[in-house]
Amino acid sequence: MNNQAIIYAFDLLGTVAFAASGALAGVRRGMDLLGVIVLGIVTATGGGVMRDVLLNDTPPFCFKNELYLYLAVAASVVVFLTPRSFERMNRAMLLLDALGLGTFLVIGTSKALQFNLGLMGAIIMGVMTATCGGLVRDLLSNQIPLILQREIYASACVVGGALFYFLHFTEVPNAVNLTVSAATVIAIRCAALVKGWQLPRGQAH
Amino acid sequence: MNNQAIIYAFDLLGTVAFAASGALAGVRRGMDLLGVIVLGIVTATGGGVMRDVLLNDTPPFCFKNELYLYLAVAASVVVFLTPRSFERMNRAMLLLDALGLGTFLVIGTSKALQFNLGLMGAIIMGVMTATCGGLVRDLLSNQIPLILQREIYASACVVGGALFYFLHFTEVPNAVNLTVSAATVIAIRCAALVKGWQLPRGQAH
Amino acid sequence: MNNQAIIYAFDLLGTVAFAASGALAGVRRGMDLLGVIVLGIVTATGGGVMRDVLLNDTPPFCFKNELYLYLAVAASVVVFLTPRSFERMNRAMLLLDALGLGTFLVIGTSKALQFNLGLMGAIIMGVMTATCGGLVRDLLSNQIPLILQREIYASACVVGGALFYFLHFTEVPNAVNLTVSAATVIAIRCAALVKGWQLPRGQAH
Repeated sequence: MNNQAIIYAFDLLGTVAFAASGALAGVRRGMDLLGVIVLGIVTATGGGVMRDVLLNDTPPFCFKNELYLYLAVAASVVVFLTPRSFERMNRAMLLLDALGLGTFLVIGTSKALQFNLGLMGAIIMGVMTATCGGLVRDLLSNQIPLILQREIYASACVVGGALFYFLHFTEVPNAVNLTVSAATVIAIRCAALVKGWQLPRGQAH
Repeated sequence: MNNQAIIYAFDLLGTVAFAASGALAGVRRGMDLLGVIVLGIVTATGGGVMRDVLLNDTPPFCFKNELYLYLAVAASVVVFLTPRSFERMNRAMLLLDALGLGTFLVIGTSKALQFNLGLMGAIIMGVMTATCGGLVRDLLSNQIPLILQREIYASACVVGGALFYFLHFTEVPNAVNLTVSAATVIAIRCAALVKGWQLPRGQAH
Repeated sequence: MNNQAIIYAFDLLGTVAFAASGALAGVRRGMDLLGVIVLGIVTATGGGVMRDVLLNDTPPFCFKNELYLYLAVAASVVVFLTPRSFERMNRAMLLLDALGLGTFLVIGTSKALQFNLGLMGAIIMGVMTATCGGLVRDLLSNQIPLILQREIYASACVVGGALFYFLHFTEVPNAVNLTVSAATVIAIRCAALVKGWQLPRGQAH
């Protein structure tokens, strides 16, 4: 199994995990079946769609390969039918979510470098790919996006994106870079969950 | 009057109906004249603009033919000046809204097929064209989007979009397909309104 | 110092002012450091990014010249560290914000005319460039966007955008048009602040 196939497998796994988290948010807010599916699709694909629109690589990835959409729909329907079992699997869900986070980050950052963006652009495209689906999920559920206020989440992606950018301009092979950068994001995210790390908050009067 | 002209007429009618619903939401939230116009424009054109951005057909439709924008502004100003008369016409408004829903759905789905999208892409582009304007209206009014939680609305579009997709690959003439699929959406939506149909909701703990 | 350089200087100044307003909103809502930076970046660049996506001029401006992003990050970090000093400088901030408003408006409207949009398109692209960053800031803070409900803000941009459009088709040199239209926006905005001008609101039942 080569490197490309491994990334693709993690990408699909992350898609399912993200769709499930979106669908669960929809169930909690009392949405109907279609609303739950919409929230699942948007959470799983929204970040990558935004990235592709900004890079002008259209139609966005999930319209070129609809497997992403079918997986998101399937995961959402399963969550809709058995939401309680997913809530019980909370730890497994957080782990899958962290896997998706690291995978989406390196996919987004490496695509940005193919399109010749700079350091900030590469980080932003990676962070966007990994977190904007969840951000839109929170907006559609009428909440302040979690990623803006809680825990080490997007910040793990910033570290991973910067790492990927710098390794990209060394002699490190791309396959190694993808693995190391994604693993860094996943490790930081998991450590933050276990240790309860947080970034400092602003001090308003 | 040929088929193209009929669709165009319904498209403009739907634009007015959607703009009026956006403007009315703005008036209810105490927005000023410009806010009401912005909400009218966004509700009427937001779905089609998102579709055109994702399909990379830019500038989006309403910037190529500004009649859509002028109609949206005009409808919004009329609603701003006489909101009560529109609230009294609640039934007529719902009917016009259903007409717009069916028309926008077939326009979006048929455009997606011109751009060679698959089944999921065709349905999503149709649903997006028909409902994302209203979704942004609700976001800007700081509410959980109605289409995610209430009644048969977006789901009527899903049925119509799938129908259009399958008929498209048969020998049914395009004009018949457009009419039948739009009429299906309108009929489901109207029946749902009369009968109070709803999709099942998720069972959170 | 030629005309181009003056616009660029104001553009950067406006970027800093908008980023600071976004960051301040983040601090007030108790966001962490990264959330504050994200809100700063989005407020400063969001309007221009939307404009470039709709005009299909990608990647958007701030990914071609990352100085905008670095300035937004720097301004956000300073606000995060010393939010109180910015709250004390309330008047200076409002003035800088008005400068940014006028500058972003003429940049957006003049770009729309380069892409051959019509009157409505030119006004909308200008207003979008000047106000959509703040609109997304308010959405991410879970508030009804201020520009839809309060004071003369976006409406000053509408006047400036229409003025720019009409002067563009006269013999007035472009440099004069840029200056006059931006100054008009800034003057209306400042006068509205001093006098407390408001647009009429809708009369819901």
